[in-house]
Amino acid sequence: MRYLTAGESHGKQLTTIVEGVPSYLPLTTEDINESLLERQKGHGRGKRMQIEKDLVDIVGGVRHGYTLGSPIALVIHNDDFKHWIDVMGEDPVEDPQAVRRIVSRPRPGHADLNGALKYGHRDMRNVLERSSARETAARVAAGAVAKKLLAELDINIVGYTKEIAGIKAVEFPDYTYEERDNKSKASSVRCLDPQAAEQMVNAIDQAKKDGDSIGGVVEVFVEGLPAGIGSYVHYDRKLDGRIAGAVASINAFKGVEFGIGFEAARLPGSQVHDEIAWDKEHGYYRKTNRLGGLEGGMTTGMPLVVKGVMKPIPTLYKPLQSVDIETKEPFNASIERSDSCAVPAAALVMEHVVAFEIAKAILEQFPHDQFPKLQEAIKNYREEIRVF
Amino acid sequence: MRYLTAGESHGKQLTTIVEGVPSYLPLTTEDINESLLERQKGHGRGKRMQIEKDLVDIVGGVRHGYTLGSPIALVIHNDDFKHWIDVMGEDPVEDPQAVRRIVSRPRPGHADLNGALKYGHRDMRNVLERSSARETAARVAAGAVAKKLLAELDINIVGYTKEIAGIKAVEFPDYTYEERDNKSKASSVRCLDPQAAEQMVNAIDQAKKDGDSIGGVVEVFVEGLPAGIGSYVHYDRKLDGRIAGAVASINAFKGVEFGIGFEAARLPGSQVHDEIAWDKEHGYYRKTNRLGGLEGGMTTGMPLVVKGVMKPIPTLYKPLQSVDIETKEPFNASIERSDSCAVPAAALVMEHVVAFEIAKAILEQFPHDQFPKLQEAIKNYREEIRVF
Amino acid sequence: MRYLTAGESHGKQLTTIVEGVPSYLPLTTEDINESLLERQKGHGRGKRMQIEKDLVDIVGGVRHGYTLGSPIALVIHNDDFKHWIDVMGEDPVEDPQAVRRIVSRPRPGHADLNGALKYGHRDMRNVLERSSARETAARVAAGAVAKKLLAELDINIVGYTKEIAGIKAVEFPDYTYEERDNKSKASSVRCLDPQAAEQMVNAIDQAKKDGDSIGGVVEVFVEGLPAGIGSYVHYDRKLDGRIAGAVASINAFKGVEFGIGFEAARLPGSQVHDEIAWDKEHGYYRKTNRLGGLEGGMTTGMPLVVKGVMKPIPTLYKPLQSVDIETKEPFNASIERSDSCAVPAAALVMEHVVAFEIAKAILEQFPHDQFPKLQEAIKNYREEIRVF
Amino acid sequence: MRYLTAGESHGKQLTTIVEGVPSYLPLTTEDINESLLERQKGHGRGKRMQIEKDLVDIVGGVRHGYTLGSPIALVIHNDDFKHWIDVMGEDPVEDPQAVRRIVSRPRPGHADLNGALKYGHRDMRNVLERSSARETAARVAAGAVAKKLLAELDINIVGYTKEIAGIKAVEFPDYTYEERDNKSKASSVRCLDPQAAEQMVNAIDQAKKDGDSIGGVVEVFVEGLPAGIGSYVHYDRKLDGRIAGAVASINAFKGVEFGIGFEAARLPGSQVHDEIAWDKEHGYYRKTNRLGGLEGGMTTGMPLVVKGVMKPIPTLYKPLQSVDIETKEPFNASIERSDSCAVPAAALVMEHVVAFEIAKAILEQFPHDQFPKLQEAIKNYREEIRVF
Repeated sequence: MRYLTAGESHGKQLTTIVEGVPSYLPLTTEDINESLLERQKGHGRGKRMQIEKDLVDIVGGVRHGYTLGSPIALVIHNDDFKHWIDVMGEDPVEDPQAVRRIVSRPRPGHADLNGALKYGHRDMRNVLERSSARETAARVAAGAVAKKLLAELDINIVGYTKEIAGIKAVEFPDYTYEERDNKSKASSVRCLDPQAAEQMVNAIDQAKKDGDSIGGVVEVFVEGLPAGIGSYVHYDRKLDGRIAGAVASINAFKGVEFGIGFEAARLPGSQVHDEIAWDKEHGYYRKTNRLGGLEGGMTTGMPLVVKGVMKPIPTLYKPLQSVDIETKEPFNASIERSDSCAVPAAALVMEHVVAFEIAKAILEQFPHDQFPKLQEAIKNYREEIRVF
Repeated sequence: MRYLTAGESHGKQLTTIVEGVPSYLPLTTEDINESLLERQKGHGRGKRMQIEKDLVDIVGGVRHGYTLGSPIALVIHNDDFKHWIDVMGEDPVEDPQAVRRIVSRPRPGHADLNGALKYGHRDMRNVLERSSARETAARVAAGAVAKKLLAELDINIVGYTKEIAGIKAVEFPDYTYEERDNKSKASSVRCLDPQAAEQMVNAIDQAKKDGDSIGGVVEVFVEGLPAGIGSYVHYDRKLDGRIAGAVASINAFKGVEFGIGFEAARLPGSQVHDEIAWDKEHGYYRKTNRLGGLEGGMTTGMPLVVKGVMKPIPTLYKPLQSVDIETKEPFNASIERSDSCAVPAAALVMEHVVAFEIAKAILEQFPHDQFPKLQEAIKNYREEIRVF
Repeated sequence: MRYLTAGESHGKQLTTIVEGVPSYLPLTTEDINESLLERQKGHGRGKRMQIEKDLVDIVGGVRHGYTLGSPIALVIHNDDFKHWIDVMGEDPVEDPQAVRRIVSRPRPGHADLNGALKYGHRDMRNVLERSSARETAARVAAGAVAKKLLAELDINIVGYTKEIAGIKAVEFPDYTYEERDNKSKASSVRCLDPQAAEQMVNAIDQAKKDGDSIGGVVEVFVEGLPAGIGSYVHYDRKLDGRIAGAVASINAFKGVEFGIGFEAARLPGSQVHDEIAWDKEHGYYRKTNRLGGLEGGMTTGMPLVVKGVMKPIPTLYKPLQSVDIETKEPFNASIERSDSCAVPAAALVMEHVVAFEIAKAILEQFPHDQFPKLQEAIKNYREEIRVF
Repeated sequence: MRYLTAGESHGKQLTTIVEGVPSYLPLTTEDINESLLERQKGHGRGKRMQIEKDLVDIVGGVRHGYTLGSPIALVIHNDDFKHWIDVMGEDPVEDPQAVRRIVSRPRPGHADLNGALKYGHRDMRNVLERSSARETAARVAAGAVAKKLLAELDINIVGYTKEIAGIKAVEFPDYTYEERDNKSKASSVRCLDPQAAEQMVNAIDQAKKDGDSIGGVVEVFVEGLPAGIGSYVHYDRKLDGRIAGAVASINAFKGVEFGIGFEAARLPGSQVHDEIAWDKEHGYYRKTNRLGGLEGGMTTGMPLVVKGVMKPIPTLYKPLQSVDIETKEPFNASIERSDSCAVPAAALVMEHVVAFEIAKAILEQFPHDQFPKLQEAIKNYREEIRVF
């Protein structure tokens, strides 16, 4: 399973092609829209999120509610494009100087300047239109297909907020997927801990008032994975490596950790590892899950738990100093509108990004031409490892 | 540039093939041996490291001290194999029951059990021989080629220990690559801070006495990277994603972070981003480097700074509970010999793993058939972005 | 450079995403439409080609007539979809039995039966909608981007018909690209030889009358390639291997050959190889081009010449025997409408498929972030090898 | 499944790493040596083939006669390297001018000149040592693993000579795999037709006498493939495309065709396609196999038949004109020793190259962690499609 995305933030549309999905996976427009709409939620989002509803159009690979086995094409139209035709149109323009909204002032914390240097863009709109976090909608669309596939295999995945601006949610180690999913959806900051959530909301409002922005930590929890997904035999097949790579490629993410993560540097080995137990009913299992369900590049059968950290959005009302690339004069990067905190949405994005990597690993390991056969193979595998 | 490795811990040899290296890169056996020998150093390693010296044999792709452009093959022989022929030989055996050193007891924290379930190994030696951290020697060999390539482009990279068992080294933000490299090599725990280093040594000795193991945080620092390496245009081309993926695939690593990393969740946006400055001599630059030299999936021209966390080695004298897969009886996983702390070596491994990803990204971006042309192209690019 | 395509023959649209194109390549809708319209021409096409004009909509990666460096998304809408919503819509249907146009009768020579067995499709419309040669329009769109890139590097490529139904065009070894392109476009069967062309037209008409179909051989000619594109160092980097792989993946193609191709089995070595000459003005050159401009997996600097063979279209008025997969009863595969010969269009498709592989190989070898820099690098390389 | 090879013709060794092989495939040194020794046979080979016996050393991934699931490393040592240390050693030399056997005279038909231009080699030994057909021994080693895997799935593959220097073997359409394998091995030119074989031997002897070389056509025949291997859903997953790409990347191959191949350009559609039949015992089958067992990018269940053409070896006693790259003087490329015909060996090489692509396609489609499970899955699939 692989995918490509295309599209600029104010362009005509976002396009995603997902190749390698089995035939006969049930999949509807609603399945994907549900994910897209969740992405737009969250206390602290700017106005744009409220105005435009992202809706998918499935334009290939699905017929009568089932995948065909052929590549799936997903389009998210940009209704606002009609106001951007002059600025973003694909046709040549007579007078390049007359183009409006040229960006010669790179924003710190964005791809603007580095992208301009690399691709030779003097109008940095050419960078920011693609480097914008809007592209994550296309990744969520791809991930929604993966999430549906996993759900049909009884593998459920949810992302939520663990920390915003230093406010940490308490741990609920015993919460099931369902509890996490319900509580996450019920919270305006996608946080399982109502007390922390309230503080987070206040912190977001305060940041907005201050013209500042705040970041946070999000967690993705995956329930139902059998042991042995991934591999230890070659470095680029380890599941943790693949997940970390995908997560760190999400806009504004600066770190990833599995299970207790960086805490593993502070604890002795005897308190880090998950002892192995067995009983006739369940087969092998662990009493703890400090390693986040991953050991030796493979799943252990315990829930997979991975965190990512998102830096505060760099587009601040509070200006950051930068330099105009034409005049070389310093200026204060000020903006018109922005989100003050995108962490809740980031939880949703990371959920879908992780879903894609897990689904991909499963498809590599099991027969995947026809989805019902995959279902059966997973079922058989669960039994095989139970009695191993 | 791509590579494959092969070889079991007690097998005949480790083999690495690196494909895609330009012609006329100066490269000698010594260049690679230097890295391999550094990997074996470090207070807290077990006896094995002291007995066997890993030495490379270049068996393809290099002639008279220069790369040919053809694939480079690197072999690290295992002198001890003669004692393991019966156990690890490739030839069929008459009586599989008579094979010695069968492993039916999976060690928590290792790939043993998950690998057995996945590949159907009832003798888990078939897992541990490959999942062993010994394979990192093969990855270091590949990374040594990359490191040499980078050095010849005036891009220098060093890994060192930031934290062991909760003991944190102080920050030396102004240290150059050279200072970091010198101080790292001078320290038995590869730590820049001598006070912390002393405490770390003590902690390692104490852990050994306790029959326990300890982990830590390592940092890799890369100096000399021009801005614009990596890309924002597609998620799988972002340099941070690729580095995170490679680092998280190192044995026992449980997390990765760039620059201030998880601290970004606690600071307001105005204190996270690196403002952009310019002067005629240097072109664009940053006064701070909180984002670790990466912005929008690309380098910023500041040093690239990335940390990884290594969990304590799971092979402890202090036993962890597990279950024999044949008898299903619980047992205490006890071991004969082991390292109590492998963090210093992990710093070296991560250095080489990061070097490979960076070299790969550079080769994708610049002409790379002939190394001297690559050198010239990098030089020209540095000037172009200086005057951009 | 890589691409994915999606879309069913009677679905909403064909979608192509091309990733890895440099910034600042001039590219317009017209550039791509020109290729798409050429694909629809050719004596012997059925009615469908005449009714629907394929036109591209560039929906990502291009702004104001230039590529941005970001992925390029290309859409070819299917205006006829409104008549196919019930049959091909993505939404679940209440009564799957009521769906019209179910295909339970596999056509010999098509993917129908094999695809049904693999993906478990009992309605083989699920196969044929994707396996249809209509998908080549999406590949032509991707190839048109490559063709434009090559043209701007003074590398020109054209495909034409060499043989239809055993009627062979004479060789015009001295024709330039321009002559080949002009004569090909002027011919209703895309054949350089007017006498042969006339016979081919007659053969096509006769086949139509007979209710039969005919195939042929097409040739692609590439002028302006410098020597040394491709590589000998690893098998999967050889340019001939990559071109052969891409050509053999075109619908209905059953063979590929370079230069004299299969004739090389009949001639002594002294009459097969192209002797090497040199003069001050041109540097190294060849007096003959029997090997089709490829030697050791790389270009020689002579025109690249590659042929492909297309089998006759299997959808015949003259019935072929097959078996209904529901009733297991034999039936005669009869059809309502069809092309009797698609060879001229196949020449155009192959031209674009080869263009993509060549552009890809060039982008791997030269700096490719910014197109003007690529142009300069190619210019410099041409001079370097001239004076080598 | 993927592989890399490394090694120069007169270097220390050839190295192959094959990654992605399931665990518990029976595999011995003999399995691979059998293939290597077959490669060295054949009337018309030069002396080198008779002196050195290529023997493999399995140095990773296999234990006690079974694969481990970890990467397999295969080494073919070059005993003659001791005589080549000065010329080919990896260590820097004091006086590069003093190096013996510098090659400044490119041989037409070889990679010498194009490789020199690309990689900047003024000593073209740096090209020819890697571009030499000796590398095919490393590919045969990789293919031998694939061939063993296929054999254990009752999929058998054999390559043989169809034509040498215009002498064509008659067709034996009804020969089984076993007959083809036996007759091929019994013939000194690996030809099924004893009359043609005799003429071929004479032609080879005559060519040798003439100081010339001759090429030919080889065919690979694969029996036992179930229908539906490969895919039509995306161009780069079509099995014919992959096989053609791999075959065209074999040294000296100039063309590939499937089934009747180029003949398809001369026959009407009604005589090209393979009608579909069915009976209760066999399920679907074809009465003819004109398309060579491939339709729509997938297997049909009939034997896969693919031909490749090898040009005459360009290293002739009969000189070809070329130019010294230092003096720019023309010279006659003369040689000391050579094969006059390598077609029989090419049949063996192609057999192994095709085996690898088929095994790879099967592993992508079926569960492949444990070989016994793959066996069972193939068995079940055969039954499923029989009763489809």
